[in-house]
Amino acid sequence: MKRSYVHGYKSREHERLQDQAGALVELLHNDTAYPAGSKVLEVGCGVGAQTLILAKRSPDVRFTSIDTSAESIAAAKQKTDSAGLTNVKFQRADIFDLPYELESFDHVFVCFVLEHLSQPGNALTILRDLLKLSGTITVIEGDHASTFFYPDSAAAHAAIESLVKVQQQAGGNALIGRQLYPLLVEAGFDDVKVSPRMVYVDGSRPDLIDAFTRKTFTAMIEGVREPAIAAGVIERPCFDAGVEALYRAAEADGVFCYTFFKAVARKSEC
Amino acid sequence: MKRSYVHGYKSREHERLQDQAGALVELLHNDTAYPAGSKVLEVGCGVGAQTLILAKRSPDVRFTSIDTSAESIAAAKQKTDSAGLTNVKFQRADIFDLPYELESFDHVFVCFVLEHLSQPGNALTILRDLLKLSGTITVIEGDHASTFFYPDSAAAHAAIESLVKVQQQAGGNALIGRQLYPLLVEAGFDDVKVSPRMVYVDGSRPDLIDAFTRKTFTAMIEGVREPAIAAGVIERPCFDAGVEALYRAAEADGVFCYTFFKAVARKSEC
Repeated sequence: MKRSYVHGYKSREHERLQDQAGALVELLHNDTAYPAGSKVLEVGCGVGAQTLILAKRSPDVRFTSIDTSAESIAAAKQKTDSAGLTNVKFQRADIFDLPYELESFDHVFVCFVLEHLSQPGNALTILRDLLKLSGTITVIEGDHASTFFYPDSAAAHAAIESLVKVQQQAGGNALIGRQLYPLLVEAGFDDVKVSPRMVYVDGSRPDLIDAFTRKTFTAMIEGVREPAIAAGVIERPCFDAGVEALYRAAEADGVFCYTFFKAVARKSEC
Repeated sequence: MKRSYVHGYKSREHERLQDQAGALVELLHNDTAYPAGSKVLEVGCGVGAQTLILAKRSPDVRFTSIDTSAESIAAAKQKTDSAGLTNVKFQRADIFDLPYELESFDHVFVCFVLEHLSQPGNALTILRDLLKLSGTITVIEGDHASTFFYPDSAAAHAAIESLVKVQQQAGGNALIGRQLYPLLVEAGFDDVKVSPRMVYVDGSRPDLIDAFTRKTFTAMIEGVREPAIAAGVIERPCFDAGVEALYRAAEADGVFCYTFFKAVARKSEC
């Protein structure tokens, strides 16, 4: 389901996803745990960063984790195998062509996936159909235009905007976090509850400066340098000045803010 | 201390400040309470929106609440008198010319004030001098460029930016929220702890849509229409389209996000 995956599949990207998962686990996942015995579908598991967390937190739950990339699934499987987890079944599958019967899952989990889809609303409708009555969906997405920092920098905003545009050209939406509430309501879910999860980073947290501002966010922006310049959405000097400004915000007197959105909603009617 | 107060002193502004205080009390002030017997200086009390909350939450604390505007102080005094509060002493005073001895307060409270000062760092140094050893300062400020919403709108961002520019021309900084950590560290405070307080508003909270998105934030932007157009920082059609887009984000399928920052810091050395 990650068509033209904008962040690429290279090893630095792999490493970035690992760092990100480590730094953000508590903030994003501390309130996700499923009742023993439930059957949960994880959509777009990628290299298994979230799979590992989910499977550890809910050991008596049967997870089915899917992705369109065989390579990512292999990496994810290696990860859960190494951790000795036996409650995850991996499957290569596309969200728009799923091999599952209607109402066959108790819960669905979707993290950093909708941002890459050109029809996120359709995807949510499909996932709702797979849920049993009273089942829940959990959706976690970022929102790149939620980013602000000190010192402020127009070049840094332009560099971030260039990723937004590249992702848009690939059919995605890097600003989807803010939109989760209307998307879930429109897809027919009930009891939609959205909570923003801001990563706030200042000089009192050098670990977070390194793990998030530098190695997660700025690394993600740097990853789009060549595609963004090739696509003509930004000039190289501006992009480079923007990245430099993001590293500046990662100094001891800098501040960095980014907001993820987590939504939980229920299927109350068939 | 509110030189060229950008939001004006008209009655609609007065009403806006009241609404704002009501809607945000829990989010901003739920963790502020002072030990009985302490002497607390509130700087820039304005019409007393925060004074009322502080004085009610800490009934056995002696507050000294100051402002440069006699009219605002009169309104604030009327408010605490009506509430039967006797623990607040009001005084007309300027933060850069204060009639108090060094180390004469146990704690200092500053809310929505630094954004209007051209030398916020100097103000913090002065306030630090007024604190006794081990005393704390609490600072709450907004950050207008933390605003984002759905549906997104370039005109709305331009209208917000016009307020930022008008405030800048008056010597203030509407983006000061994100800067609290470095400002307090630079002013010599220790144990600086900053927490972002995001107001997240979606269709599940019609009360908050009305109180915050419409009557607080959008009303504040509308309040700067004539000054912003007169100052030439925005054209009228763009401003009006921006305000319309903010009201659009206040519909049931819209989303609105704004972040306040609250900092608490200590004076550990003389």
